[in-house]
Amino acid sequence: MAPIPDNLRDNALISHEANIGEDVEIGFGTRICDNVVIGKGSKIGDFCTIGEESSEQNSALLEIGENSLIRSHSVLYAGSKLGPELETGHHVFIREGTVSGNNLRVGSFSEISGDCSIGDYCRFQSYVHVGKGSIIGNFVWLFSLTTATNDPLPPSKIFSGVTIEDGSVVCVGSTLLPGAILRKGAYVSSNSTVSGEVPIGGVIDSNGELVCHVSHLVNLETGIRHPWTRHFFDGFPDEEKGRLDKLEEEIMKGRENLGM
Amino acid sequence: MAPIPDNLRDNALISHEANIGEDVEIGFGTRICDNVVIGKGSKIGDFCTIGEESSEQNSALLEIGENSLIRSHSVLYAGSKLGPELETGHHVFIREGTVSGNNLRVGSFSEISGDCSIGDYCRFQSYVHVGKGSIIGNFVWLFSLTTATNDPLPPSKIFSGVTIEDGSVVCVGSTLLPGAILRKGAYVSSNSTVSGEVPIGGVIDSNGELVCHVSHLVNLETGIRHPWTRHFFDGFPDEEKGRLDKLEEEIMKGRENLGM
Amino acid sequence: MAPIPDNLRDNALISHEANIGEDVEIGFGTRICDNVVIGKGSKIGDFCTIGEESSEQNSALLEIGENSLIRSHSVLYAGSKLGPELETGHHVFIREGTVSGNNLRVGSFSEISGDCSIGDYCRFQSYVHVGKGSIIGNFVWLFSLTTATNDPLPPSKIFSGVTIEDGSVVCVGSTLLPGAILRKGAYVSSNSTVSGEVPIGGVIDSNGELVCHVSHLVNLETGIRHPWTRHFFDGFPDEEKGRLDKLEEEIMKGRENLGM
Repeated sequence: MAPIPDNLRDNALISHEANIGEDVEIGFGTRICDNVVIGKGSKIGDFCTIGEESSEQNSALLEIGENSLIRSHSVLYAGSKLGPELETGHHVFIREGTVSGNNLRVGSFSEISGDCSIGDYCRFQSYVHVGKGSIIGNFVWLFSLTTATNDPLPPSKIFSGVTIEDGSVVCVGSTLLPGAILRKGAYVSSNSTVSGEVPIGGVIDSNGELVCHVSHLVNLETGIRHPWTRHFFDGFPDEEKGRLDKLEEEIMKGRENLGM
Repeated sequence: MAPIPDNLRDNALISHEANIGEDVEIGFGTRICDNVVIGKGSKIGDFCTIGEESSEQNSALLEIGENSLIRSHSVLYAGSKLGPELETGHHVFIREGTVSGNNLRVGSFSEISGDCSIGDYCRFQSYVHVGKGSIIGNFVWLFSLTTATNDPLPPSKIFSGVTIEDGSVVCVGSTLLPGAILRKGAYVSSNSTVSGEVPIGGVIDSNGELVCHVSHLVNLETGIRHPWTRHFFDGFPDEEKGRLDKLEEEIMKGRENLGM
Repeated sequence: MAPIPDNLRDNALISHEANIGEDVEIGFGTRICDNVVIGKGSKIGDFCTIGEESSEQNSALLEIGENSLIRSHSVLYAGSKLGPELETGHHVFIREGTVSGNNLRVGSFSEISGDCSIGDYCRFQSYVHVGKGSIIGNFVWLFSLTTATNDPLPPSKIFSGVTIEDGSVVCVGSTLLPGAILRKGAYVSSNSTVSGEVPIGGVIDSNGELVCHVSHLVNLETGIRHPWTRHFFDGFPDEEKGRLDKLEEEIMKGRENLGM
């Protein structure tokens, strides 16, 4: 643990009990609370609250992995373990009990409501609301205004979180109803409402109906086809291509089972 | 009015004209403006602006009731009277002319656009947008991305706010069109668009159609039924059970009138 | 360039390299970065980050025109040129490569993702998400939760931004799919999903179908009719009425072409 340079402390409020790695930058006006561990090379933006204690889970630790980038006005609660190369947009809120893998990217104004697990290399756009108790795999894409719910009879205390498996894609404005399960490589069209289980590589249209296998989705102008793992390696490290290849294979196998 | 301890003033900008009750805590970097009254035992989070003067309504008072909890990055304008035990999420924005009762809870990224009245024990989830001029009763639930509108011919200067009576529930992603009236215990399904009047205990499906009475809504696994007042007392004080019992009775009476 | 008064510097972090016009007010805790030009008479709220360098476009300038009002908790990146009388709500995020005309108003929690052009006198309500590469004309209205997308096969690197011409109106909760073109005075009803080209003055209903010309939209109680340019001059300067009259004429001519 490196000593915090004085010029950091001048413009921010950093607990002496926080464990801050080497080469960490901390923005103007940001507050770092006691039970926080920030991995080396990370950068925290302006006006953030890092390690806020929730009313429910006191004295828990917040771990932020190495080389993370937390943009301004974000609020991260104590009691989460966030993997390396986390990248948040501005005004992001992550509650206690969130466990995430490598290189999660969370867009502006998104809320992760806690008690959930998120795999590696997930990409969430803006205004994404991940309800409490969601289980999210690797390489999952949630576009703007995706809402993952968990209460089948609102308001009730019945709980039924969603499961989103590896490589799934949810387009803008869609709602995942309580208990929805997206199997590997499932694809949800924009402004859809999804319930039940979507099979491997299944495409849900805007009416919530299963209509085809993702390999039928093609951009006519360019000839580019789904699954996206074929055309979009961008932003993932080379050493992960093997995982993506394997995922693609699994999604393509789903084509037979779909009978479509 | 207690003197503000110096350690508060060191990290926040608090007007000497603000009237701040005993045992109030004020977060890091927060600004408290002149015409503000904060009830005792309240807690204001980091980076808030409390009592901002709107361009329209100068020198009005902002009253925040006792034992309130305003979470970080929230903006509350002058010219509102907010009842005790108000609880906001992070990044909440409440405009001038808002009058609310006991223990309103407003989720993160929500906006209350002002000139509206809100009863007791209402619960709004995240990204809820309460349009100017809405009238909201007691024990109302607005889930994420609920939008209450007010302009029937946008953009126009015609105004027609929504009315949401006691015990109503609006599920995620629904829009209340201008002039919509939800009578007591009405229930709007997710991603619905509602216009006109929904009768007492009426259920609107995702197509905006009236389909049944709330007492027909049941969770098959648990057998739990609506109205929610039967199964969800949680979070309300014991002395309010009488009001909830009476409300339930009224909602159940609506069943006969519905003829469903 | 006027010297920044000391009392500003006491409560904010203002770069000595920023070029700040006369009579500019800067809020509590706000950070102004190096490559920033703020026009005279502008007012910046609390807890803003103005001129943040994006990872993609270093050392670019951020120009904010005269008499602008940036409300609290907003984040404006370097590399944009924003016209005079810009007005933002709270918690607004504008990325690099945004060029806007006179008197743009952007509501709370909105995100403009950059590399886009926006004309004069546009009004965006809350939670509006203008995707990268959007082209927006003059006098355009985007109501709450409008989303302008740009990827026709998400996730892909294919790019197809939306075009929204002068005088168009998009009601709450609507999605403009990649490549959508709204011709002058087009009108999109609430919660619609729009693809392809909407002709001049065309009305799209909530099912995404072209149903009539805007001049058929009338509020029965008041008799007020569209196009809105006839009934809503409010908030535009007198000298712009000529442009609005001409726009109205063009929209009305579209009626013949529609054959409706």
